[in-house]
Amino acid sequence: MGEFDLIETFFKRPARNATLGVGDDCALLPVRAGQQLAISSDMLVEGRHFLSTVNPRFLGHKALAVNLSDLAACGAEPKAFMLALALPEVNASWLSEFSKGIWDLADAHHCDLIGGDTTRGPLNICITVLGEVPAHLALLRSGAKVGDDVYVSGHLGDARLALEVFRGRLTIPQNVFEQARLRMEMPTPRLALGQALRGIATAAADISDGLLGDLQHILKASHVGADIDTAMVVSTLASGFMCNLPLATQRMLTLSGGDDYELVFTAPEHARADIAGLSVSTHTPITRIGKVNGSQQLRLLDSEGDEMRNEFESFDHFKSD
Amino acid sequence: MGEFDLIETFFKRPARNATLGVGDDCALLPVRAGQQLAISSDMLVEGRHFLSTVNPRFLGHKALAVNLSDLAACGAEPKAFMLALALPEVNASWLSEFSKGIWDLADAHHCDLIGGDTTRGPLNICITVLGEVPAHLALLRSGAKVGDDVYVSGHLGDARLALEVFRGRLTIPQNVFEQARLRMEMPTPRLALGQALRGIATAAADISDGLLGDLQHILKASHVGADIDTAMVVSTLASGFMCNLPLATQRMLTLSGGDDYELVFTAPEHARADIAGLSVSTHTPITRIGKVNGSQQLRLLDSEGDEMRNEFESFDHFKSD
Repeated sequence: MGEFDLIETFFKRPARNATLGVGDDCALLPVRAGQQLAISSDMLVEGRHFLSTVNPRFLGHKALAVNLSDLAACGAEPKAFMLALALPEVNASWLSEFSKGIWDLADAHHCDLIGGDTTRGPLNICITVLGEVPAHLALLRSGAKVGDDVYVSGHLGDARLALEVFRGRLTIPQNVFEQARLRMEMPTPRLALGQALRGIATAAADISDGLLGDLQHILKASHVGADIDTAMVVSTLASGFMCNLPLATQRMLTLSGGDDYELVFTAPEHARADIAGLSVSTHTPITRIGKVNGSQQLRLLDSEGDEMRNEFESFDHFKSD
Repeated sequence: MGEFDLIETFFKRPARNATLGVGDDCALLPVRAGQQLAISSDMLVEGRHFLSTVNPRFLGHKALAVNLSDLAACGAEPKAFMLALALPEVNASWLSEFSKGIWDLADAHHCDLIGGDTTRGPLNICITVLGEVPAHLALLRSGAKVGDDVYVSGHLGDARLALEVFRGRLTIPQNVFEQARLRMEMPTPRLALGQALRGIATAAADISDGLLGDLQHILKASHVGADIDTAMVVSTLASGFMCNLPLATQRMLTLSGGDDYELVFTAPEHARADIAGLSVSTHTPITRIGKVNGSQQLRLLDSEGDEMRNEFESFDHFKSD
C-alpha cells in the first residue's frame, strides 16, 4: 500500500466544516464573522507519550484528545484538524484501529480531518487542531485576579496511578488498574465545560504536565500567587481504592500526576453559583481548591491550614526520564 | 535547558498577525472578512527528508519552505505557523542555527510562529502553516479545463541532481554540485507567483514528488489528460552543465526529480500574455510545457512530437527507499 492509497483508505472523508478537505495542497476553512481561530499542536512519540504495546484505537483517541483538550482550555469549539504521521511501516490493521479511534472522537465533536502528511520514520503522531472562539471571549492563562477562586474539573491522578503500576512502583487490584489505565489511554477533553466557562472564568489551562505545574503557568502569566488546599485536591481522586494509599502518594498523584486533561481555572467569588450550575449542565464534577492572592507564590496548605513544602515537580520532556 | 527555557530562548517572539502567540494553550488568529483560511502540514524526518549532516540553518529554512510552498500552490498569503519538534537532545548551538533558518524565511514572508510543541524523540520536524486566501479565489487541483496550457515555474532538477551525487550515482564539478545542493537544501517557495495566479490559473500544485507525479494529481482531480513536450521540460534545467548529461538523465532529473518546490499550473490560452507579464512582475521564469486534453491520459512527447514511454515514477514514502 502506497502513501496515497493509505490516505484514501483510512483518512479521507468528506469535510463538513471545511470548504476543502484532504487531497489538495492546502485545506480551506471558512471562519465565521466575529470568531477567531484557536490553534494548537501536540506531537506524540512512541516510548515517551505512549508504549509500543498500546491499543492503536486508544492511541488514535488520545492523540486527538490531548489536542482537543487545548481547545477546551481556551473555550473554543473544535472545527477541524490536521494529522501528520510518521510510520515505521504500513500495517493496515494497526492503521484501521488507529483511524477508528480518531474518527470516533472527531465525530463526537463534529471535527473534520482536513489534511496532513504521511511519511516513513520512527512512529510519531503530530496533530494540529483548529477551533473557533468568539473574539475577546477566549480563556487565557493571563486573566486570574487577586481574590479569584481556583477550581479543577473532574478527577485527578488516575493516569499517573496507571503509569506508576506500569513502572512497577505500585501494585493495585486489577479492576482499579483497568479503570485507571483507560483514563490514561482514553482521556476526555473537557470541551463542553471550556465553552461554558467563557465570560465566567478569568483564566484557564488544561492539566497535561500535572496540576501544580499547569496552575503555575496561570499564576505566572497573571502575575499573581495562590493558596491551594491540598486536602480538596486529594478529594478529586476518582477511585475509592486510592484512599488506601499513603497520603504522600495520594498527593503526588493529584498534585503532580500529569496526563489528566482536566481543566484548572480561576473565577471571581460571585461566580460560585454559576459554576455550580455549569457543573450540572455539563455533567462535570468541579472542585474548588484554593484562592488567588497577590503574593506571586504558590503555597500548599495541608488539612490543618498549615503550609507544606512544595516538593512536586511538573513534567518536562527535557528534564524527566 | 528545559522545555520551557528552550521555547523561550529560541522560539518566542511577539506575534504580529496573531492575537495571541506562543505560550498559552492555543494561539489565536483573526481571519479577515471575505478571506478563507488555507492550512497545510508537512513532517520532515531525519534520514528520509534530510541527512543528519545537513546544516541546521538550511534545515530550518527547508522545513518552513516546503510548507510555504503549499500555500503558494493555493495562492494563499502566509500569516502564521505552528512548529512541533521532537529532538533527541537539547543542543543549543544546533537549535540556534535551526531557529535562525526558520526566522529568516518567516520574516521574509511576514509569517508569525504562534505555537507548537517540543518533546524528546527521534528528530522530527512538523510544521503547520496558516494563510489567507480570498474566498473562491484559491487555486485548486481540480480546475484544469480541456484546451488549457500547462506551465511550470523556475528550474527543475537541481535537487535531484544533488541527491544523485550524494547517492554516488553521478559525479559533477564541485561548483555545480554546490549550487544544486543549495537548491535542494534551501528551496524557494513561489509565494508571489501563487498569489499573482489567482483568477488566472485554473489549477495549480507544487512540485514536491516530481513534476509528472504532481501534474497527475491535477489531471486526476480535474478529470482530464495532457500532452507534455518533454523537450520544453528539459529546457528548465538550471545549470548549463546539465546539458552535458545524457538526455535520459536530463529527463529523469526534470520530469521526476522531486523536491523542486516549483509550481505546475494550467491556464487558458487567452491568459498567455498575462502569464508572460506575471513572469516579469514576480521575477519568476515560467515555461509552457504542454496542453490539457480530454483523454484522461498523461502523454509524453519527444522533440519530434512522437509519444514516449512514461517510465518515470513519482516519489512515494512507502514505496521508495
